[in-house]
Amino acid sequence: MPTPFTTQDFADRMTRAAQAAAGAGLAGLVITPGPDLVHLTGYQPTAVTERLTALVLPTDGVATLVVPKLERPDAEHATGAPALQLADWTDDMDPYQVLRPLLDPAGRYGISDSAWAMHLLGLQAALPGSSFTSLTSSLPMLRAVKGDDELERLAAAGAAADATYQAILTVPFAGRRECDIAADLAARLLESGHSQVDFTVVGSGPNGANPHHEAGDRVIRPGDTVVLDFGGLKDGYGSDTTRTVHVGADVAEQVREVHEVVLRAQQAAFEAVRPGVACQEIDRVARAVITEAGYGEYFIHRTGHGIGITTHEPPYMVEGEEQPLVPGMCFSIEPGIYLPGRFGVRIEDIVTVTGSGGRRLNNTPRELAIVQ
Amino acid sequence: MPTPFTTQDFADRMTRAAQAAAGAGLAGLVITPGPDLVHLTGYQPTAVTERLTALVLPTDGVATLVVPKLERPDAEHATGAPALQLADWTDDMDPYQVLRPLLDPAGRYGISDSAWAMHLLGLQAALPGSSFTSLTSSLPMLRAVKGDDELERLAAAGAAADATYQAILTVPFAGRRECDIAADLAARLLESGHSQVDFTVVGSGPNGANPHHEAGDRVIRPGDTVVLDFGGLKDGYGSDTTRTVHVGADVAEQVREVHEVVLRAQQAAFEAVRPGVACQEIDRVARAVITEAGYGEYFIHRTGHGIGITTHEPPYMVEGEEQPLVPGMCFSIEPGIYLPGRFGVRIEDIVTVTGSGGRRLNNTPRELAIVQ
Repeated sequence: MPTPFTTQDFADRMTRAAQAAAGAGLAGLVITPGPDLVHLTGYQPTAVTERLTALVLPTDGVATLVVPKLERPDAEHATGAPALQLADWTDDMDPYQVLRPLLDPAGRYGISDSAWAMHLLGLQAALPGSSFTSLTSSLPMLRAVKGDDELERLAAAGAAADATYQAILTVPFAGRRECDIAADLAARLLESGHSQVDFTVVGSGPNGANPHHEAGDRVIRPGDTVVLDFGGLKDGYGSDTTRTVHVGADVAEQVREVHEVVLRAQQAAFEAVRPGVACQEIDRVARAVITEAGYGEYFIHRTGHGIGITTHEPPYMVEGEEQPLVPGMCFSIEPGIYLPGRFGVRIEDIVTVTGSGGRRLNNTPRELAIVQ
Repeated sequence: MPTPFTTQDFADRMTRAAQAAAGAGLAGLVITPGPDLVHLTGYQPTAVTERLTALVLPTDGVATLVVPKLERPDAEHATGAPALQLADWTDDMDPYQVLRPLLDPAGRYGISDSAWAMHLLGLQAALPGSSFTSLTSSLPMLRAVKGDDELERLAAAGAAADATYQAILTVPFAGRRECDIAADLAARLLESGHSQVDFTVVGSGPNGANPHHEAGDRVIRPGDTVVLDFGGLKDGYGSDTTRTVHVGADVAEQVREVHEVVLRAQQAAFEAVRPGVACQEIDRVARAVITEAGYGEYFIHRTGHGIGITTHEPPYMVEGEEQPLVPGMCFSIEPGIYLPGRFGVRIEDIVTVTGSGGRRLNNTPRELAIVQ
């Protein structure tokens, strides 16, 4: 178990977030339940419901967490609670009127991406002179640069995912359904210390050509190419890795070729990682390799996404993202080629930016493994 | 297994929703992943992420489901898909520009309560002349009146929850932790046909005074009052019932008194259910009983919430909700009294409105049961 985060850790994070908000010209932040609230306060309500919970973090002044009264006892137990004020509201009150005096009536606020539209509309009505912008627009890198205590957790999650991959190579594939392999992956992720399994993609044969195919009833056969993409949370931080394997040693020429192209694209993108390089450059490098090999139209998603206390967060490695890489950022590099009706190949590692380049948090062989 | 919903069922629901939207003066609806999308199309993406998925349902014209391209194969398999148009976008596109031509630039739209603020802000920017209102504000009763096929599922979920309660009365309580009883509840919900357990509240002794306490390490003792509130989904529809039990037959006078007050409040509220009565009246009736008994300040939440494909949805039985009850509505009646530091009592049934009154979907005894 890593050392738990302390109240001081959360206080420091709130201070840094308020400074970043000021730097972005904001009057403050409005944070609703989800990863930003966990990051800043350690608080996660049992369930996200229609009842408003919101942290108002002004750039100058005291942070206030507004909660439904019946959830106040839980909120009081959050590690970050001593570093903020608590306020509550009951079902006979208008929660937006409770938030109103905490906000500058002419201020611009960053609001959690996943705040409910219902709550944003309530705030817009209660504060017609205020304006709102999503955190991804205004402060996308709020959680993007990880501290050493977070990198330690992400590396441990990556190592656990690697152990899962090594273990899955030893199970039989041929004659079993995708969902059976998915269950094996889930069991091994839990055995390796994950508290939560978020996805276990097993895309065999033509199903591998659907990047977000999960796992179905298809029976895997000798000669199938199988995309394995799995991850979850370990000690609160995410894992996410993909390898493509082949059932039996009789590999079709085009499978070999496509896999080799994806491998080169993934390696080239990894080698492009260094501080100051724009995120979109990582995407361009991977895409160039695949396009030059003639498969550009079959690489139908961005090259990567950030990872931390969620498995999808900024920074995104995508055309148009000009954010420069900063040491401590963590993200996936996961180029793929998807030939409709035939097969798919994807290779994915989590990578963190160091002072001079990149470091992989997944370190299993990337070559096309043969399974039985 | 109930008969699955058909493409025609979803087409009919979309038609009714478009008519309701027109009746509310809207140009249409913008529905993002979650219960409204499941209700209207049967489609639920594997995960709700930052990538926009949205159904645009105009009051006149064809419904269009906009999805990320890599999720299109999944969307095509939704039962409702043949009843709508599909459109997709790739990571190099602005999804709000994909939605823009589908919306009236001067229209007013109802948007899913839980649509991400990020997406609403994107739509507001792309369509500065359009306006948006949450479905709870503009069309709160979209899913509130259940069809017979839905009532059948809710009744079956209620019966399964009842079986769970009857079973839990036979397990030992004294000397075991709350979380052990919670695990028993979860196992019995699954045994009784639930596919998903959403909550298993076990609030023993002073923990019962926190209405949203889940279940912790506290060891239950003879003389404890224990609030048991549990539910989940069975065949896609929710259960939610609460009973308060006592460990051993030696019941303190005030526990008996408080339980009797809550029982009377719950019964009175149930008897008030009939078509045309305002939702807030159900809350008032329950609250009046508790207030007259001198415990008004300890009933710290609304009296109930709707239930369907989610366990919390309109209609809400709360002061200020003037919506009249309509046959087919389903909701909880769950008054409670919470004495801080001492104990809590709550009694909850799901009730549906009939042509002339109410019908309970939970039918286990409501009296204070004695457990060992």
